[in-house]
Amino acid sequence: MEIIRTIARLCEWREQAGKTAFVPTMGNLHEGHLALVERAAQEAPNVVVSIFVNRLQFGQGEDFDRYPRTLEEDAAKLRDAGVTVLFAPDESELYPQVSQQYQVEPPNLQNELCGAFRPGHFRGVATVVAKLFHIVMPDVACFGKKDYQQLMIIEGMVRDLNMPVQVVRVDTGRAEDGLALSSRNRYLSSSERAEAPRLYRVLSETAAALRAGARDYAALEREAAAQLQQHGWTVDYVEIREADTLNIARVGTPRLVVLAAARLGNTRLIDNIELEIAV
Amino acid sequence: MEIIRTIARLCEWREQAGKTAFVPTMGNLHEGHLALVERAAQEAPNVVVSIFVNRLQFGQGEDFDRYPRTLEEDAAKLRDAGVTVLFAPDESELYPQVSQQYQVEPPNLQNELCGAFRPGHFRGVATVVAKLFHIVMPDVACFGKKDYQQLMIIEGMVRDLNMPVQVVRVDTGRAEDGLALSSRNRYLSSSERAEAPRLYRVLSETAAALRAGARDYAALEREAAAQLQQHGWTVDYVEIREADTLNIARVGTPRLVVLAAARLGNTRLIDNIELEIAV
Repeated sequence: MEIIRTIARLCEWREQAGKTAFVPTMGNLHEGHLALVERAAQEAPNVVVSIFVNRLQFGQGEDFDRYPRTLEEDAAKLRDAGVTVLFAPDESELYPQVSQQYQVEPPNLQNELCGAFRPGHFRGVATVVAKLFHIVMPDVACFGKKDYQQLMIIEGMVRDLNMPVQVVRVDTGRAEDGLALSSRNRYLSSSERAEAPRLYRVLSETAAALRAGARDYAALEREAAAQLQQHGWTVDYVEIREADTLNIARVGTPRLVVLAAARLGNTRLIDNIELEIAV
Repeated sequence: MEIIRTIARLCEWREQAGKTAFVPTMGNLHEGHLALVERAAQEAPNVVVSIFVNRLQFGQGEDFDRYPRTLEEDAAKLRDAGVTVLFAPDESELYPQVSQQYQVEPPNLQNELCGAFRPGHFRGVATVVAKLFHIVMPDVACFGKKDYQQLMIIEGMVRDLNMPVQVVRVDTGRAEDGLALSSRNRYLSSSERAEAPRLYRVLSETAAALRAGARDYAALEREAAAQLQQHGWTVDYVEIREADTLNIARVGTPRLVVLAAARLGNTRLIDNIELEIAV
């Protein structure tokens, strides 16, 4: 595995490399990331993983400064996983100007769900992913379904801006108790960690109710949020949406996704479940 | 020369083609375009020219509907010029959705100079050029200096979003009397056509005054605008700017550009002159 720190060297490498799959990350890698890497290796003989904590997608007061940076451990894991190139640019390499002047502006979906609580987040994600795509020029890029809204925004950007890359969706990795794997799980105290799986349980119950025929979406959302609140969570949202568009779900849509974001103490967790219902 | 109408066929062609230079146009080709094509041919063995009248960069009340569409004549000229591929997609090929959802958002420069009179214009230009770059994947792209602000915005986008393409600047083509070549010149009546070269003459006089030591930029701008107005022009702006950034020119900047946009009847013409002054 080669560790590359500059865009120039990455482009030089890319010139002679063949089909390439790409996994963009912010590092602090867990099994969920390694599942993305595994899938990438099935897609192409070259796998590039980037590690870059992207200031542009963090808001005021968010955890940019304390976001875990564990490059050495990450590199060891990626080496073991057989990755071809680890691209780990300094911030000055990706953002040489004081600020990023040209941005990719997503449609209004960027202001809904997580976007309502993290203004500018998805613009920052879309912009850095566009930059990384232009640098790495991957044939395939793998994204996890845990960040479902992010995945939809990346897919929309690729389609709408005609980017020559195929986006592959990879299922959410989970701990044995169901908690979605996330770098932010390490912020949890041990009692919070014990409580955290409730998020997935509550979403699973909502999904089960939908499969069983419940159709009052607003009531289901309220009940799920109430359950979390009763156990000390601060709920940003629980929403039932159309899985393919993230539009508000209407009765008659078969493919749904139940999404939630909620906080335990200072730690914000997100999760979602896709499901199909009879219509 | 192959004429390609679909993105799928273009990508198929691109897969097997080598180094490629690209000239994006809106068609109705004149000698200025052909100079871009000539330059492109010096840069790469494959030359792709696109013809696409981009609705996204036209404002309400602008000339989208009457913009001259002359595909057959254009194709003949490009064939004679030895172009490899003419890419002429239908509107539904580039904009299959009702609207373009994801856009490239340029910085505030998009609201100055021509942007102050054409809201959204440069966002529309940046977005379609990003799309075309993603489709054509050129190594080199040639743009004319006549649209100086557009050139600066494309260069900024490429640099800031790390697009893997080299932008080449090509000098403005001019008629013998100095008028910058433009598809919009065909809107001019014969008396307007006789008056039109004044735009370049006035900019030349401003440049000469700067070279001769005049440094009251605001006064020079006012005088130039007044001269045009006296001869029946409606002046959008005459401005002296820094050539490399298009920032407001400060005393002490050696590389300047004098830019103007003014209307004769319903026809809006633009032009500019770069110059260097002693500091």
